[in-house]
Amino acid sequence: MTRLYNDPAAFADEALEGFAAAHRRWVWPVPGGVVRATAKTPGQVAVVIGGGSGHYPAFSGLVGQGLAHGAAVGNVFASPSAQQIRTVARAAESGGGVLLLYGNYAGDVLHFGQAAERLNAEGIATRTFAVTDDLSSAAPDEAHKRRGIAGDLPVFKAAAAAAEQGLPLDEVARVAAYANARTRSFGIAFSGCTLPGADHPLFTVPEDRMAVGLGIHGEPGIGEAAVPTADEAAELLVSTLLKELPDGVTDPDGQRAAVILNGLGSVKYEELFVVYRRVARLLADAGVQTVDPEVGELVTSFDMAGISLTLTWLDAGLEALWTAPADAPAYRKGRMPEAVAAEEDEASYETGSGPEPYVASDDSRKAAATALDALSRIKETVDAHADELGRIDAVAGDGDHGIGMQRGSAAAYEAALHAQELGAGAHSLLTAAGDAWADRAGGTSGALWGIILRSIADVLGDTERPTPTTLAHGVRQASDSVRRTGGAEVGDKTMVDVLVPFAEALGQQVGEGAELTAAWAAAADVAEQAARDTARLVPRMGRARPHAEKSLGTPDAGAHSLALIVRAVHGALATCQ
Amino acid sequence: MTRLYNDPAAFADEALEGFAAAHRRWVWPVPGGVVRATAKTPGQVAVVIGGGSGHYPAFSGLVGQGLAHGAAVGNVFASPSAQQIRTVARAAESGGGVLLLYGNYAGDVLHFGQAAERLNAEGIATRTFAVTDDLSSAAPDEAHKRRGIAGDLPVFKAAAAAAEQGLPLDEVARVAAYANARTRSFGIAFSGCTLPGADHPLFTVPEDRMAVGLGIHGEPGIGEAAVPTADEAAELLVSTLLKELPDGVTDPDGQRAAVILNGLGSVKYEELFVVYRRVARLLADAGVQTVDPEVGELVTSFDMAGISLTLTWLDAGLEALWTAPADAPAYRKGRMPEAVAAEEDEASYETGSGPEPYVASDDSRKAAATALDALSRIKETVDAHADELGRIDAVAGDGDHGIGMQRGSAAAYEAALHAQELGAGAHSLLTAAGDAWADRAGGTSGALWGIILRSIADVLGDTERPTPTTLAHGVRQASDSVRRTGGAEVGDKTMVDVLVPFAEALGQQVGEGAELTAAWAAAADVAEQAARDTARLVPRMGRARPHAEKSLGTPDAGAHSLALIVRAVHGALATCQ
Repeated sequence: MTRLYNDPAAFADEALEGFAAAHRRWVWPVPGGVVRATAKTPGQVAVVIGGGSGHYPAFSGLVGQGLAHGAAVGNVFASPSAQQIRTVARAAESGGGVLLLYGNYAGDVLHFGQAAERLNAEGIATRTFAVTDDLSSAAPDEAHKRRGIAGDLPVFKAAAAAAEQGLPLDEVARVAAYANARTRSFGIAFSGCTLPGADHPLFTVPEDRMAVGLGIHGEPGIGEAAVPTADEAAELLVSTLLKELPDGVTDPDGQRAAVILNGLGSVKYEELFVVYRRVARLLADAGVQTVDPEVGELVTSFDMAGISLTLTWLDAGLEALWTAPADAPAYRKGRMPEAVAAEEDEASYETGSGPEPYVASDDSRKAAATALDALSRIKETVDAHADELGRIDAVAGDGDHGIGMQRGSAAAYEAALHAQELGAGAHSLLTAAGDAWADRAGGTSGALWGIILRSIADVLGDTERPTPTTLAHGVRQASDSVRRTGGAEVGDKTMVDVLVPFAEALGQQVGEGAELTAAWAAAADVAEQAARDTARLVPRMGRARPHAEKSLGTPDAGAHSLALIVRAVHGALATCQ
Repeated sequence: MTRLYNDPAAFADEALEGFAAAHRRWVWPVPGGVVRATAKTPGQVAVVIGGGSGHYPAFSGLVGQGLAHGAAVGNVFASPSAQQIRTVARAAESGGGVLLLYGNYAGDVLHFGQAAERLNAEGIATRTFAVTDDLSSAAPDEAHKRRGIAGDLPVFKAAAAAAEQGLPLDEVARVAAYANARTRSFGIAFSGCTLPGADHPLFTVPEDRMAVGLGIHGEPGIGEAAVPTADEAAELLVSTLLKELPDGVTDPDGQRAAVILNGLGSVKYEELFVVYRRVARLLADAGVQTVDPEVGELVTSFDMAGISLTLTWLDAGLEALWTAPADAPAYRKGRMPEAVAAEEDEASYETGSGPEPYVASDDSRKAAATALDALSRIKETVDAHADELGRIDAVAGDGDHGIGMQRGSAAAYEAALHAQELGAGAHSLLTAAGDAWADRAGGTSGALWGIILRSIADVLGDTERPTPTTLAHGVRQASDSVRRTGGAEVGDKTMVDVLVPFAEALGQQVGEGAELTAAWAAAADVAEQAARDTARLVPRMGRARPHAEKSLGTPDAGAHSLALIVRAVHGALATCQ
């Protein structure tokens, strides 16, 4: 379990601060993450990686010459926000464009995608690529839905070495995709990790059993089996990987492969070596030549007990990239050319523009006051239900929904308060709140709540007095945006299962002439029923929830929190009238 | 807990094999450990380190250019045997002599000392030095009794860098002693590790408590306190280390120090960084300039949950040695000059001479048959009581007594059987058995049992028919040798508490004319009573058993196993007559 922390909510920030303090020779801290402390090469593509905290050495430990140029580091097990990613990318880039690399999780896909949009709009050519090496998380014909686990490393390494060679952005992105296509991982787990401040692990496996297939966010596996001997574990991992060869490899015999035997946290080095002893023999028996094997902790999940095996099937080009030198805090290989420390101002970064002068009508400022009250009630409700949300989320997800919602709603309220003090109208206040929510909460739900608040903000404006019709229209816009951006539909066991019927009910009530609080109350009833109904659904496989079926009988955490929030907002609307 | 293993007794050997397979670029396996795979520098002092398995990256992961030339690797938590150390040292040395470095534990001191004696006798100049950095294991006025924990690394590093500079053996040994004198560590623990094949941890601490002061063999601490926040943990560690400055340092302000924040296994990187954040600030507040801090897992104890902080107070000379480049599997720093791979035959080693042609009288061969029967019964008794011995040993020691005795007695029987097949007399058979016991069992008890069997062997010879008087004399010789070599006296709660009264009783009975089995039976009664009586003793502090007082009420495991063995041997003597 995680025992050493101060304020659990500050854990990720404090860990990053300590990491940077211990590794000044390699990295500089910037808001949202770290960038290389060595001098930039003008025109070189910047490879910026990232993801949640709790996976060290992923992601900050992989920043340095020959590896990543920067890492955006989110909260525990939560994606960094688009704003964090943008800040790190701007600090890392040196004129050659940016390749954003991350594991294929819904939150990361959302935030890195949004960051890329912004960076491209700002004139910094940016591409994204999500690693999908985990065999256990989707079938071969849906390989694009798979999660990224320890295969992150060879993909990052190949792309970074290609950038170091001076290849242009599109080529570096192509290398990442190619390395990913040649990389497969598979793992087993014995117990989950216990997050800072939590008093029980995210999942448990009976002592004599193991979970087959593992996630790196404390997700249990896709099946269960008896605890194997070390040799049996090696045989399971190797045989599974040899069963699904990448395109272009028909027979392992005579192939060369990069090998990573990764420990998740509390399976220790000697155990890994005992397993690797057999892995090496099995690969040799199959005719596979191992190249620069790595046996250790490369992508962890706190003190989770588990291991995974990764193979990257090499050709001459990939092998040169895999064996190229690198010098990062947690990954050093070969001899990098002598490093030159960057000038202090070279890693300059901007954290966004200062406070805008708000222009708003009194009507809109009055609506903004109601919005602020609603945000205050949202924060209170989320705080009161944070543990419950975490528990529900832990059934099928990574258990961070409560923490993420707390961070997001608190940040949104703070930002809204500040905006109100500066005279913001409803549009400006809700936009500031939405940006803050997404930035501080990270994760999928953070991004989606940012979208919800901004969608409503866009409809309300800073001038007109909002009517029930405009508010209902804003909620409908929010519903459409969340569906479009999140890619989920009704029945997928997400917040969409609540948002869509709620928006419809509100629109219908308002259309029939009901006054706002009555309409909202009726729609809130619909939302609560819809949230309860998600208990009978099974979410789609893939990405963050491969063990989705386990949640049958439990409502979706995001759906449940949305229903709670809808009810809380009703209080603000009622008070206002 | 340790979950991935095959045969627990083969764990250490299999881990070493897998480690070597994964790190062929750095190390070559030799019997008993590993040596550098890079070409030797003729005339350079070879720094050979070592200790038990279970501490990775100590010790095998620290072999490579700029660090150790070789590592002797014992069984789990047990010293390598003198024979292992000798083999590794011979494979590592290149004409400049050998410095043997290890943590200050009784078993290591014995075996490395014996190895040094043999190497010196063979014409290889050899010095030894035991690291004593752990503040919690003895008071400042008995600092030479302290254990070695993560301070191993800076001492190894300084000595190895001095060797790399071409300093002569005595100078390199002086550097090691100086670095040790400037190095202090202190740690805290939350839970012990569970060894391969065991079903419970070596010690537990209540969930909301921590052990203050830690060992790296699963030993609990010297005190207990409430679990601290990360900042409080940092404050405890830093303030403890600042309280005991080394000679020549009167004020931390303005000093420079190497810093190691070490994780024992399942306290993970992010937690270490959160703690380091505060450590760095506290040291800065005290005016201490940190140099090349290391935050990670440097000396582990399987998945034990604990951390330790090490400071090495630098002067210009030590700083140059600490910051010098190194390239080992688990420790890389700076840029080593391009490595040249060693020629395959350069790491040649000898494993000892082949089977000797045994010359023995029929009388002595008959005595040898009785000795073989006795060794068979010893093995059976040890097997039957292995779990019990491990449990008793775990109260105050590292719980490996049962495993060590099993390995030792099995190896002794095998070697004796082989010797008998080749016609060995009592002397040759018992000598072979003693060597095998010490070599395979490792640890303190392995060394002492080797001495016991060889002492008896020396008295019996290969010609004369043993009489009760010669056997009693042999036992007396064994008793004297064990006291001399082990440094323990009656009352220290060791096997000496049984061996001395047993030898005296046997000598007295035989002297009074009792026939052998009756004399032995009476002496065995004395031994059993003496073993029980050790329950009221508290062993001396220091070295392997700093939490000695916890064993009050429990007999000593080594005393208990000796009494069991004495009784088993009686069966062989009775059958023979």
